[in-house]
Amino acid sequence: PDRACEGLAQQRLDNLTKPPGSLGVLEDIARRLAGIQGKPLPELPREKVSLVLAGDHGVVAEGVSAFPQEVTPQMVLNFLRGGAAINVLARRAGARVVVADIGVAGPPLEQEGLIACRVKSGTENFVLGPAMSRQEAVKAVETGIALLQQQVKERPALVGIGEMGIGNTTPSTAILAAFSGLPADQLTGRGTGIDEARRQHKAFVVTRALQVNRPDARDGLDVLAKVGGLEIAGLAGIILGCAAEGIPVVLDGFISGAAALVAHSLAPLSREYMLASHLSQEPGHRIMLEMLGLKPILHMEMRLGEGTGAALAFPIIESAICIINEMATFAEAGVSQGE
Amino acid sequence: PDRACEGLAQQRLDNLTKPPGSLGVLEDIARRLAGIQGKPLPELPREKVSLVLAGDHGVVAEGVSAFPQEVTPQMVLNFLRGGAAINVLARRAGARVVVADIGVAGPPLEQEGLIACRVKSGTENFVLGPAMSRQEAVKAVETGIALLQQQVKERPALVGIGEMGIGNTTPSTAILAAFSGLPADQLTGRGTGIDEARRQHKAFVVTRALQVNRPDARDGLDVLAKVGGLEIAGLAGIILGCAAEGIPVVLDGFISGAAALVAHSLAPLSREYMLASHLSQEPGHRIMLEMLGLKPILHMEMRLGEGTGAALAFPIIESAICIINEMATFAEAGVSQGE
Repeated sequence: PDRACEGLAQQRLDNLTKPPGSLGVLEDIARRLAGIQGKPLPELPREKVSLVLAGDHGVVAEGVSAFPQEVTPQMVLNFLRGGAAINVLARRAGARVVVADIGVAGPPLEQEGLIACRVKSGTENFVLGPAMSRQEAVKAVETGIALLQQQVKERPALVGIGEMGIGNTTPSTAILAAFSGLPADQLTGRGTGIDEARRQHKAFVVTRALQVNRPDARDGLDVLAKVGGLEIAGLAGIILGCAAEGIPVVLDGFISGAAALVAHSLAPLSREYMLASHLSQEPGHRIMLEMLGLKPILHMEMRLGEGTGAALAFPIIESAICIINEMATFAEAGVSQGE
Repeated sequence: PDRACEGLAQQRLDNLTKPPGSLGVLEDIARRLAGIQGKPLPELPREKVSLVLAGDHGVVAEGVSAFPQEVTPQMVLNFLRGGAAINVLARRAGARVVVADIGVAGPPLEQEGLIACRVKSGTENFVLGPAMSRQEAVKAVETGIALLQQQVKERPALVGIGEMGIGNTTPSTAILAAFSGLPADQLTGRGTGIDEARRQHKAFVVTRALQVNRPDARDGLDVLAKVGGLEIAGLAGIILGCAAEGIPVVLDGFISGAAALVAHSLAPLSREYMLASHLSQEPGHRIMLEMLGLKPILHMEMRLGEGTGAALAFPIIESAICIINEMATFAEAGVSQGE
C-alpha cells in the first residue's frame, strides 16, 4: 500500500466535521483503501465480485460433519441457480457471484456458469497421510491467482471470498492449530452444527492429523498440503492475487481465515490487502484475526461461509469511501473545531 | 409483535438451504421484522428515515465537553446542507434525513428544511437543579411522537434515530446511572474526546447531579426531567411512536441508548420494536444494551452519534429481509438436509 496516500487520507479524515477518529473503523477502512488504491481519495469500486470455491475433504470419512458429502455439489448447483444465501446477499450488495469447482469429489461437474478448474477430486483423508501433494497445493494456489486475474478486470475492484466444502472447518482448524501451536480442543468448534461429543471427536481427529503429518509451521505450503484443502489453497491464491493486483480482499469466516493464514505465511505483506468482515461463531476465528491483526466489523454469530459475511460488509466498505469523499470539512461547513 | 408471524418466519428460515441458525443475527432480524410487520414474510421498507433531533445542555457550563455549545446550531446547518456524516451514510442507505430543533440554546433557528419544534432553549444545568420541568419532559416526548407520525407515512417503514447536542453524553450517563444504580465513574466515557482528568470531572458532575436531583428510577419521566435532555426525550418519544405504529426503530449509540432506557421504562413493550445497530466506544453503551436485551450488529469503535451507526445498519437489516424472501428451501433446491 501507498503510505503517502494513507497519510493524505488521514489528514482529510481529521478535517471532516466530526471529532477526530469518531467514526472509528470506518475511518480505518477509508485510510487503508486510499493506500491500497494508491489514491488520497479512494474511489467506489467499479466491479464487486464474490469468488466462491468448492472443494471436498477426505477427512469426512472420520465423521466430522453433520452433512453428507453430496451436499457440496448440490450447493454448487444452488449457487448457479441463485438460491443460496451468498446469491441473495451479493445481489443485494451489487456484486457478481463467481463459482468454481477447484476440488469437488466425484465425477466432473459440467454445469453452465460453473468454472471448472478442478485440481483433484477432493483431498485424501489427512488422518492417514497428507491431504494432497506439495505439487497439488502449489497448483491449487496458482489456480486461485489465475481465477482472480481472469475474473476481476475492472479497477478499482472489491473482492469477497467464500467457499463450499462439507467438512472444511476440520482442515481450517488443523491449519490454525499448526500455525498457532495451540491445542486443537481449544480451537475446534461445532461447524455446521455437530453436538459436543462429535466436536470432541473432531478435535481428536485434528490432533491425530497433526501427529501423523507433522506440518512445518514455517512453511505455508507444507501446512496447506498436509492438512489443508483445495478450496482453502485456491482462496489463499486469490488473496495473493489481490495483493499483487492492488485489490482489497474481504475475508469471510473461519475457512477464509485459514486461507488468509496460509497467504500471510507465503507473503506477509498480503495482510495489508485483507479486510475482515465478520466474527464467526467458530471459536478459532477470533484467534486467527488476532494473529493477522485484523478487526472484524460485524458481530452476527454467523457460521455459514459461502462468502456471506464478506458480501454483507460490502456496503459498509463503500460507505467508508463515501464518507471521505462526500463529508464537509470544518472550514467548508463553518463549524468550530474542538480543543 | 405478532408471535404467530414470528413462528412462521422461523419455520421458513429453518427450511432454507443452510444449516439451521447459521446466519445468526441475520435470522433473528428477519424473524423479529416478521413479528413487527405482522407478516410471515417481512417486506423491504418503502420508506427509510433517519430522524435527527438537536438539543443543548445547561451542564456544559461545568466544562464536560471538548467542543463549544455553538457547534450544536452549526452542525444543524451542516445537516441541512448535506455535509455531515449522517447525510452521507443515509444517502448511501437510501434514507431521508429529517432534522428537528427540539431544544437548541439561543435565538430560534429559522432555516429551510429544519423542523422547528423547540420545547425549551436548552436544558438547565442539572448540577444545580432539574434539567427541565416534568411538564417540559412530557411535552418533549409528545413532540417526538408527533414528529414520527408526521414524518413517516409509508408502510412498511424503517426508522433510525440520531441526535446532535454538545455535552449530551453527560445526561445520557446520568440516565444510565439512575436506571442501573451503577457508580458514575464506571459508566463515564470520553465523549467526543476529552482527556482522563476531564473524564473524572465529568463522572463527578454526574454523581453530583444524582445527589442534587435524586431521580426516581421507577419513574422514567422523573429521570428524564431531572437529569435528561430535550433531544433525549424526543428520541424516547420517537421510539414510543414507532412501537405504537408497528415500525422497527434502529438505535444508534450511547445517547439513543439512554432514550431507549427511558422509553423502556415508560412502556416496557417498546423494547420489542428496537434494533441495536452498533456498539459504541462509550463504556456505558454495552451495559445499556444488556439492560435492554439487545445485540449490536456492528463493532466499529464509533462515537459520533447523529444516527450514523443506525444508518450503517440499514443495508444489513434489508439484507435480512431479502434472505427470508429470496433464498431457496432444501426441497426447492434438491439439497440433502443434515442430521
